[in-house]
Amino acid sequence: MTVKIFRNARIYTPVGDAPSRGLDQGMIHILERGALISSDGIISAVGPEEEVLALRQAGDAEEEVDCGGCCVIPGFVDPHTHMCFAARREEEFSMRLAGAAYLDILKKGGGILSSVRHVHAASEQELFERTRALALSALSFGTTTVEIKSGYGLDTESELKMLSVIRRVGRETPLHVVPTFMGAHAVPEAYRGDVDGYVDLLVNEMLPAVAEQGVALFSDVFCEEGVFSPGQARRLLVESRRRGLGLKVHADEVHDTGGAALAAELGAISAEHLLAASDEGIRALAASGTIAVLLPATAYSLRKPYARARAMIDAGVPVALATDCNPGSCFTESMPFVFGLGVMGMGLSVGEALVATTKNSAHAVGLGAVCGTLEPGKNADLLVLDGDTPAILAYHAGVSPVKRVYKKGERVVCTA
Amino acid sequence: MTVKIFRNARIYTPVGDAPSRGLDQGMIHILERGALISSDGIISAVGPEEEVLALRQAGDAEEEVDCGGCCVIPGFVDPHTHMCFAARREEEFSMRLAGAAYLDILKKGGGILSSVRHVHAASEQELFERTRALALSALSFGTTTVEIKSGYGLDTESELKMLSVIRRVGRETPLHVVPTFMGAHAVPEAYRGDVDGYVDLLVNEMLPAVAEQGVALFSDVFCEEGVFSPGQARRLLVESRRRGLGLKVHADEVHDTGGAALAAELGAISAEHLLAASDEGIRALAASGTIAVLLPATAYSLRKPYARARAMIDAGVPVALATDCNPGSCFTESMPFVFGLGVMGMGLSVGEALVATTKNSAHAVGLGAVCGTLEPGKNADLLVLDGDTPAILAYHAGVSPVKRVYKKGERVVCTA
Repeated sequence: MTVKIFRNARIYTPVGDAPSRGLDQGMIHILERGALISSDGIISAVGPEEEVLALRQAGDAEEEVDCGGCCVIPGFVDPHTHMCFAARREEEFSMRLAGAAYLDILKKGGGILSSVRHVHAASEQELFERTRALALSALSFGTTTVEIKSGYGLDTESELKMLSVIRRVGRETPLHVVPTFMGAHAVPEAYRGDVDGYVDLLVNEMLPAVAEQGVALFSDVFCEEGVFSPGQARRLLVESRRRGLGLKVHADEVHDTGGAALAAELGAISAEHLLAASDEGIRALAASGTIAVLLPATAYSLRKPYARARAMIDAGVPVALATDCNPGSCFTESMPFVFGLGVMGMGLSVGEALVATTKNSAHAVGLGAVCGTLEPGKNADLLVLDGDTPAILAYHAGVSPVKRVYKKGERVVCTA
Repeated sequence: MTVKIFRNARIYTPVGDAPSRGLDQGMIHILERGALISSDGIISAVGPEEEVLALRQAGDAEEEVDCGGCCVIPGFVDPHTHMCFAARREEEFSMRLAGAAYLDILKKGGGILSSVRHVHAASEQELFERTRALALSALSFGTTTVEIKSGYGLDTESELKMLSVIRRVGRETPLHVVPTFMGAHAVPEAYRGDVDGYVDLLVNEMLPAVAEQGVALFSDVFCEEGVFSPGQARRLLVESRRRGLGLKVHADEVHDTGGAALAAELGAISAEHLLAASDEGIRALAASGTIAVLLPATAYSLRKPYARARAMIDAGVPVALATDCNPGSCFTESMPFVFGLGVMGMGLSVGEALVATTKNSAHAVGLGAVCGTLEPGKNADLLVLDGDTPAILAYHAGVSPVKRVYKKGERVVCTA
């Protein structure tokens, strides 16, 4: 057994088994001088330093890590990314800044369909190398668990290629990777004007292949005007559930189409985006316990108002934050940046943002029992910050305070 | 002579001798495949790669740097910082987030006067080590020239201690450091209720000492309700000018006290903050050619609306951007973050933001002839970005794309 003791740590962690909501969203357990024992990568004890040190057993192979009195928090869980892509869209970003409408960009070959062309053209190895590089950058910003969606393939072969790459990133980097199938990310050019035909393909060919091969844990759909209607989304989600996949919904991003209510009704684990969610949708999420995965960096990058995080927390919706890392609407893999926007832009408290980026985001990818808090039985995934409290993540604006990253007790990043 | 050739570079640079304003604020010279020659740290040629390579002279000691087709821009000039301080104020930040008013924070010993106490308590060596660490972090984000203000001393000895530290950072790091005397940053506790008495001290003792010792290039004053009145600021600035110091003004940050107009009238090189500047103040700056140094990360960190950058550019005011790096209202040393806020938050174009962070900010610290553009005769201060265009600085949100930093032709930072 490999035993590692982290001592001299100011530990800030959410606690408890269920997603945190309402007043609990901001509740953080604090140990001013704490310690934590990792036994073969799993936390076996955490508490005041003296108590934890008294638990040491002679004979265990032991390594001591002095955290230098710094703030220690759980590793970030980023529960919504599209970081498997083959090319950036920097030029399109400049067009958008210059005022080009999204439709004009689409006409010039931009948008999601441009990413689809690049994924089609890329070899699996190229796609892997790009995705790995981005995942490792995310790791350096403190992300120890990441969800990655397919959805730039939009045909069976390419979607499976993406999912294969996504799973390989999980095997060949220290990150825990959660693969989500999102063939319903957009309607491919071949099916323009025949969305139902594409839904047939999804239901009859793609979903069965994904489910049989067991290459995704969740199924996600972009429910939005001009993309997939609530009826089409429902068909896909019901079929996904029948095939054993967990459900996620890109809901009410641009228009309120009732996506939040649909996610709640079908028992989706999360509804994501929600910029345009209605009060009714928010009440439905609260009633079902569906997690709202909010993406403040996307609002920032699109110069849009943020999702109504405060209203959601006040209504009792468990809120999580994610990067949405993608080459179009939001190119960032930095959870510290997202944390800062959550606090400065959305008005979350530091405690609420910490819960939203660790415990609740772990629940949003079905890993609430595995990571997201520093409690016995959970993975020893933890970050040592260059600061006294998690407030440093907002206070040191635009600069990552993540000094050291430990994944299952092993140091995987060290910058200082 | 040490000759270094930078080739295979997509060069984006402002050009020309005067600060850029109006339509020129966004004008950038682009070389899709450019090269640049650094001769003993000074640019001797820049242009299309073929033309520049034809200039090579046999016999010169030569080193070639392949920029890999990446975007190359001038090093950032950060023209407004308070990065010489002895302690962070993370706890005060949390109080502020929790809704504490600044006056309550002051009562509990926070605010600028808390930084003053820490600077008084710190040894010169401690203060140097902290400032150097922050300066080197700024360098890693691409800042090759930085202005640093005193102003946490507020007595003659402590202000001179700060200026000594600031100058030492310039000698012992690769950064070009511009020292600014800002004894008029706040009214010290000993002079509470006797601001004129403190102005007497500034005029009769501190300014003469600073000027005689030649330890500062500029003099700055916080002209604001409850701090220094326009009349007191005028007295200080006139006296500073008489003693040979350039003038800067913290103007119209919280209230419109006519600070912008005062800066314009006295021929200050820059007026800084300007969140509350009136149309009249903006017209005055345009008429005098005074540079507006805007601090978007401060607005972000205080959750305030941004300064009216577009109105200023439209009125013909040359606009520069700076971090305002300080332990209270804005703790960031990242110019890429400030660039991103300038574009996404203030609505500058990428070209305008590039001018604002290089050429115009060089002029704002009196170094327009030395750095801020990639032109013959200027310092070979340049950044290699992980991107095709300067848009990457906004597109890759919250993540610095600065891969390599060269100061006077020497590589001082390399992350990839």
